[in-house]
Amino acid sequence: MAPDQPFWRTSISRVRPGEILVRGHDLIELIGTRSFGDVVYLLLSGELPVRGEGRMIEAALVAASEHSVVAPSVDAARFVASAGVPLQAAVAAGIIGLGDHHGGAVDAAARLLLDAAETGKPVREAAEEAAGRVKDRGGRLPGYGHPVHDPDPRAGRLLEVASELGFRGSWCRLALALEDVTESVFDRPLRMNIDGALAAILLELGLDWRLGKAFYVIARAPGFVAHVFEEQTRERPYRDVGWERVGYDGPEPRPGP
Amino acid sequence: MAPDQPFWRTSISRVRPGEILVRGHDLIELIGTRSFGDVVYLLLSGELPVRGEGRMIEAALVAASEHSVVAPSVDAARFVASAGVPLQAAVAAGIIGLGDHHGGAVDAAARLLLDAAETGKPVREAAEEAAGRVKDRGGRLPGYGHPVHDPDPRAGRLLEVASELGFRGSWCRLALALEDVTESVFDRPLRMNIDGALAAILLELGLDWRLGKAFYVIARAPGFVAHVFEEQTRERPYRDVGWERVGYDGPEPRPGP
Amino acid sequence: MAPDQPFWRTSISRVRPGEILVRGHDLIELIGTRSFGDVVYLLLSGELPVRGEGRMIEAALVAASEHSVVAPSVDAARFVASAGVPLQAAVAAGIIGLGDHHGGAVDAAARLLLDAAETGKPVREAAEEAAGRVKDRGGRLPGYGHPVHDPDPRAGRLLEVASELGFRGSWCRLALALEDVTESVFDRPLRMNIDGALAAILLELGLDWRLGKAFYVIARAPGFVAHVFEEQTRERPYRDVGWERVGYDGPEPRPGP
Amino acid sequence: MAPDQPFWRTSISRVRPGEILVRGHDLIELIGTRSFGDVVYLLLSGELPVRGEGRMIEAALVAASEHSVVAPSVDAARFVASAGVPLQAAVAAGIIGLGDHHGGAVDAAARLLLDAAETGKPVREAAEEAAGRVKDRGGRLPGYGHPVHDPDPRAGRLLEVASELGFRGSWCRLALALEDVTESVFDRPLRMNIDGALAAILLELGLDWRLGKAFYVIARAPGFVAHVFEEQTRERPYRDVGWERVGYDGPEPRPGP
Repeated sequence: MAPDQPFWRTSISRVRPGEILVRGHDLIELIGTRSFGDVVYLLLSGELPVRGEGRMIEAALVAASEHSVVAPSVDAARFVASAGVPLQAAVAAGIIGLGDHHGGAVDAAARLLLDAAETGKPVREAAEEAAGRVKDRGGRLPGYGHPVHDPDPRAGRLLEVASELGFRGSWCRLALALEDVTESVFDRPLRMNIDGALAAILLELGLDWRLGKAFYVIARAPGFVAHVFEEQTRERPYRDVGWERVGYDGPEPRPGP
Repeated sequence: MAPDQPFWRTSISRVRPGEILVRGHDLIELIGTRSFGDVVYLLLSGELPVRGEGRMIEAALVAASEHSVVAPSVDAARFVASAGVPLQAAVAAGIIGLGDHHGGAVDAAARLLLDAAETGKPVREAAEEAAGRVKDRGGRLPGYGHPVHDPDPRAGRLLEVASELGFRGSWCRLALALEDVTESVFDRPLRMNIDGALAAILLELGLDWRLGKAFYVIARAPGFVAHVFEEQTRERPYRDVGWERVGYDGPEPRPGP
Repeated sequence: MAPDQPFWRTSISRVRPGEILVRGHDLIELIGTRSFGDVVYLLLSGELPVRGEGRMIEAALVAASEHSVVAPSVDAARFVASAGVPLQAAVAAGIIGLGDHHGGAVDAAARLLLDAAETGKPVREAAEEAAGRVKDRGGRLPGYGHPVHDPDPRAGRLLEVASELGFRGSWCRLALALEDVTESVFDRPLRMNIDGALAAILLELGLDWRLGKAFYVIARAPGFVAHVFEEQTRERPYRDVGWERVGYDGPEPRPGP
Repeated sequence: MAPDQPFWRTSISRVRPGEILVRGHDLIELIGTRSFGDVVYLLLSGELPVRGEGRMIEAALVAASEHSVVAPSVDAARFVASAGVPLQAAVAAGIIGLGDHHGGAVDAAARLLLDAAETGKPVREAAEEAAGRVKDRGGRLPGYGHPVHDPDPRAGRLLEVASELGFRGSWCRLALALEDVTESVFDRPLRMNIDGALAAILLELGLDWRLGKAFYVIARAPGFVAHVFEEQTRERPYRDVGWERVGYDGPEPRPGP
């Protein structure tokens, strides 16, 4: 870094006395006139919505907003909250847990759709090939199948909203084609889950596939807050699983060498 | 914990095959029909909005959404991002940093308003007493004054929106009364900043003052995502401040004892 | 900050090409000649040990190193690990959880000892007053009593080691006096736990009471690593509590307003 | 999970009233008789040292313990600390930052050594091939070269200690062979850095290569504590980079669409 250069460089926003510019737009003008979804789109894409992208994002955020303590990230946030930490620190522990087996399936599903599309083949053929490659590697098809829901009602509803708002394009078709081929490729039908739907919508919105986890990071924030607050105001401090409930299968008592 | 009791208990949501119930409401029905602000309000208060609370929350989230690398939490997220970690982990580092001197001023300002109101005294008198107590303790008045902005344009705009949406009630009046008395109490005018406005709005919405940091935790999530993504896609890995730029004022080289 | 000043200033260490100076000592000379406990003491106190402080610290770190999944911080780290995140990110989730009800009891217990000592009264009288004040506030006595162990065998062993190494001074005596008065003050004997012993040792070592959590932060790091690694290499990804095991006590299904 | 099975299963430790068993060893017997390095080895490998592994680990921990604010993880921890959060939460932000471009180079370097060894070829040939593959992929050789130090004095000293303690075996030889071939493969000599030395030592100790980051996670904990404490006790709250120092290269002010 040259000594005469600023340490930080950003294209996201500019702060000066009395001014906050976000991607070229005066933040003050956005307050009360633009939805949070619009601003999410602005922050992630660099542009304000021109055809309802903010509404599509709000629907996606609502869909991903809460799934109770069935999500391991929420369990983590509540355990941490019980230990006596500030609200935002407990939320952060939950957010760390939006990992590759959690929110990360959106990235993977979006990458899968991109790879299929890049073959240039007809939709069904591209879907079969893509699913086949996943099967050959012995992996799971990201965005399809769910441990609790069959089908996942969030996926279907998200695609409906995408239709209503004009975002049910070629990425949604490809995602549905993948669903169609699962029975023949994997010998059992795998229904599109919320991550598969979010992946298709991410691409319909023109966002980078590597932003897949962003939906969960943003959407789950208020749910983490609610769980942390409930843990800290309604439950006993220091959540204890109980030593009797732990199964130990290490070495029996032994002397040191 | 009795052995026949569930390990987890929550009033926030219920997940069963094909069902996600949030505070008694079917999540599927909320997707595409309710704003994210409505769902934030539902998660935090337990009820869906009845008089525009969701729009007020969206305005608050937009106002708090981005303040560039001038916020230390964003610097933290970018340093961590540069070290090669997944998006959500770098965002989490930023969220941890929404501490008592950052998003925490909303809690403190809301607590100040509550304490003042609980005296039962006329607004101006209550404001003078509250500001006086802070001064006597040698502290800063949380929610007033800003290191960059004078005045902070977000505060004024938020109060305007509160007027438009019918949320400019007694808490806003008390917050403005506090602003009015700063010149006489602190010998210089301290203008309401975004945290002061958020505190008043938090109370107008009937939310618990301890949820003050929630606004920042939720609002900043997309900005953290944008900064982490920019750092990881546009800057060199392993952001290095440069050893020449570090001032060391510890002991000079010395032998061990 | 003046433009000609370095952005960072630290008295902890200096890095130049070929040189790493820690508190004035050449790091290279410490490698292989000094224990990790010596370096922990150097980093925290600013000085290398002169009378066995490093050995005392190592004993404290060993005592606090592991308490299985009975600690909520470990549960948090394992839930996060199961979601598919890098090792250090899952460990970080655990470390966040070393909160005021966890590692934080060391700070609180050390503060209690300091407050008692500052009265200048005889040991037993000071202990009675200090315990009485805690009881009057309706609080728990930090550092005494344990949900699983009665007594906590780590406390007794740590005091033994303190004797052996010459660190059983006035702070240990005061901590034992507090144990002695619990029966009369709280109507039941509360035995010193590991946090109480760590607090006394912290003060015997001349360290700042606000560093109480440091023992846990450092000591638990390898245990967090072991738990995260075990979770990621031996358990199924995405640890699921099972929706059947969750008790929901929120509103029953209801229509929107 | 079957309902009659414990929720948690672990081979690391067992807690019962009055008992803490770590990998089969009574924790109480380890306090004051075993070094922290011994216990780190026990936690990570499952066994107590039999030939000085704990001393080798302590040397490695001391070597990796501190590198000032030149490490981005430390900058992150200090920014977060300045925002007013508990000590352990700020440390956690730093630990998140021990990512793939930071502590993660140890994993990558260990993997490189394993891949080279698995070819079964003579050392120099295996080293040339391994370095060549890295070069062909356009990558950096993990564990070699350093932005500040040339050579990194920690690497040489660690290998010396490995000799003294009997851990300078075939993995160290292979690591040195890699250093030797860098000049011919990359057209400039790349000296082994601390990560390369830690990788070799990790394998000499028989530990899993995926534990590479563990050295940094454990070793840096006290340094993070020291930096967080210094930031919170010596510097002004809310570390501010200064808006004048930020370079904005996004769109100029523009109206909304």
